[in-house]
Amino acid sequence: MSEVTDHLVTPIAPEGWTCPAPLRDRPRVVMGHGGGGALSAELVQQIFAPAYGGEALAQMGDAAAVTLGGARLAFSTDSYVVRPLFFPGGSIGDLAVNGTVNDLAMRGARAAYLSCGFILEEGVELDVVSRVAEALGAAARTAGVEVATGDTKVVESGHGDGIYLNTAGIGLVPTGVDLRPERVVPGDVVIVSGAVGVHGVAIMSVREGLEFGVEIESDCAALGSLVEAMLAVTPDLHVLRDPTRGGLAAALNEIAQASGTGVVLQERAVPVPAAVANACAILGLDPLYVANEGKLVAFVPREHADAVLAAMRAHPLGREAAVIGEAVDTHPGMVVARTGLGGTRVVDLPIGEQLPRIC
Amino acid sequence: MSEVTDHLVTPIAPEGWTCPAPLRDRPRVVMGHGGGGALSAELVQQIFAPAYGGEALAQMGDAAAVTLGGARLAFSTDSYVVRPLFFPGGSIGDLAVNGTVNDLAMRGARAAYLSCGFILEEGVELDVVSRVAEALGAAARTAGVEVATGDTKVVESGHGDGIYLNTAGIGLVPTGVDLRPERVVPGDVVIVSGAVGVHGVAIMSVREGLEFGVEIESDCAALGSLVEAMLAVTPDLHVLRDPTRGGLAAALNEIAQASGTGVVLQERAVPVPAAVANACAILGLDPLYVANEGKLVAFVPREHADAVLAAMRAHPLGREAAVIGEAVDTHPGMVVARTGLGGTRVVDLPIGEQLPRIC
Repeated sequence: MSEVTDHLVTPIAPEGWTCPAPLRDRPRVVMGHGGGGALSAELVQQIFAPAYGGEALAQMGDAAAVTLGGARLAFSTDSYVVRPLFFPGGSIGDLAVNGTVNDLAMRGARAAYLSCGFILEEGVELDVVSRVAEALGAAARTAGVEVATGDTKVVESGHGDGIYLNTAGIGLVPTGVDLRPERVVPGDVVIVSGAVGVHGVAIMSVREGLEFGVEIESDCAALGSLVEAMLAVTPDLHVLRDPTRGGLAAALNEIAQASGTGVVLQERAVPVPAAVANACAILGLDPLYVANEGKLVAFVPREHADAVLAAMRAHPLGREAAVIGEAVDTHPGMVVARTGLGGTRVVDLPIGEQLPRIC
Repeated sequence: MSEVTDHLVTPIAPEGWTCPAPLRDRPRVVMGHGGGGALSAELVQQIFAPAYGGEALAQMGDAAAVTLGGARLAFSTDSYVVRPLFFPGGSIGDLAVNGTVNDLAMRGARAAYLSCGFILEEGVELDVVSRVAEALGAAARTAGVEVATGDTKVVESGHGDGIYLNTAGIGLVPTGVDLRPERVVPGDVVIVSGAVGVHGVAIMSVREGLEFGVEIESDCAALGSLVEAMLAVTPDLHVLRDPTRGGLAAALNEIAQASGTGVVLQERAVPVPAAVANACAILGLDPLYVANEGKLVAFVPREHADAVLAAMRAHPLGREAAVIGEAVDTHPGMVVARTGLGGTRVVDLPIGEQLPRIC
């Protein structure tokens, strides 16, 4: 694949985005700092890691891997600020369970316990709080995880947005499982578990009142059992990631950068539903950069790829799983897409997130 | 102590408070729902527990006790919405570490790992974010806990208040340690680790620009090492609690209700610094209800009380430890104070919090 770099075309920056710059040129927080892209990474690398980063934080995975009392644990947290609170296919309550459960699953861990912190805005209807709590409970039961501990704070009207949630989760990492980008080697096969871009477009459609001819429902789901099915084929998967904020593009870039290998993406192989493609065309979005909440991307040793793909397709959450590319030894740290027209383009790490507050 | 109930006086509700009522009569969230008192308990009992409560959540302790991979873990979370972000003696970064570390310590666990979720408001200065992160890092190093995983979200200007933080923590519970209110028996000695009311008054003074003649600094501190010193005397302490929101009154009421024993408090024995007493007199507050962030209250078997008290006084964070009361078999579930004048009064669970957003 060494010829790929010979055909690079200049990446076109999405409209309105500027090039990354050190934080010192941006003295204030902007929405993009929460987008899971280059600005978020800057914040972590320049402020958070120097202030309190240790060995576990330096792993920079979806979840930290820690050992406590002889148990190998995955530990992760996310805050949820999605707007609106309810959207086609889910709610902030579903997201708060599935997002954290999936972060643990990306370490190979089945989530065991969640914590749950509510930040309520004064004046929000208790009925809304109740509906969110019920959605959270239903999602936890589906995922097989127990909410073990919680906290509630209230802020004055005008200092919140109805409900913000935080969950943290812990789960056991099975023996022999060691999922991290450093294990990726050239030749690894890249598999995505299904259609991309659905969650972001679902949020956008309801938030902006857009109609795309057909209602698009979020793919929000807990991936623990899918990951278990994959690990049953072989514990030797190399890395898993759920392409949430920043979409597939951000997930692949993070893996490429952390592993030091290149990634070649066969753009036509990426499953994009027609409704998502149409919506993205109207909105000027690239489906590779749109967030997912019930999908994963896996880097699998070539000899296991067929069996893992078959196991995924046999699972309800992996029916549309597809091989979408491979790890290569050329262009280390870089993701390059082969386009439908036979050309290539660099798939950059996004600066921020095209759609703020999608999770 | 059976005579206590004969002398009960009618408790006087703090001004502006109404009697508790079921949630159905309050269709919207009010500030008091975040106050750690009766309204918070209603929210948990009527909405959260039915929606997603399991065995661990039902413990209703500062932290949940769970078992994972053979390890006995304490697991806890708190969100922090204190206003202002910096106050005499600390900041939201210190609180976010010490609050969660202390919740784990109240289970007897030394905090091992923290998660950290930032919800930033668009427009907040990065320098402020940086100072908070540095305070958080310094507090974590002091407490001997590692920040293992994190998350950042950004909300639009006008939907936050600079910085909200959430931390969750996990730690190992030592063998033989089983701290929970159900273990309290009549005769247990109640010990507080030092002066009460300091944190709440410190926040109030800076928030409202009040001057009390002397600057009152928050007592915000991590209590892990103090708890270890106490458990070194005997692992058989019955229950510990950090009297944060709702103060000593809320902590004692929660223990009385969960244990089904009564508590008699010797009001004159409770250490209240003169500056706090003066400030409370001016503001119309009761020091028993004012929040602390570096204190604990312990229910200790009578035979170990002297030794535990001595161990506490030998520790820098327990120098002013004092016996303040005992558990009794009369008035089960109720806290009664013997006043300085020889009378008694019921110390109720507060409805909300006298000072909103103190942590």
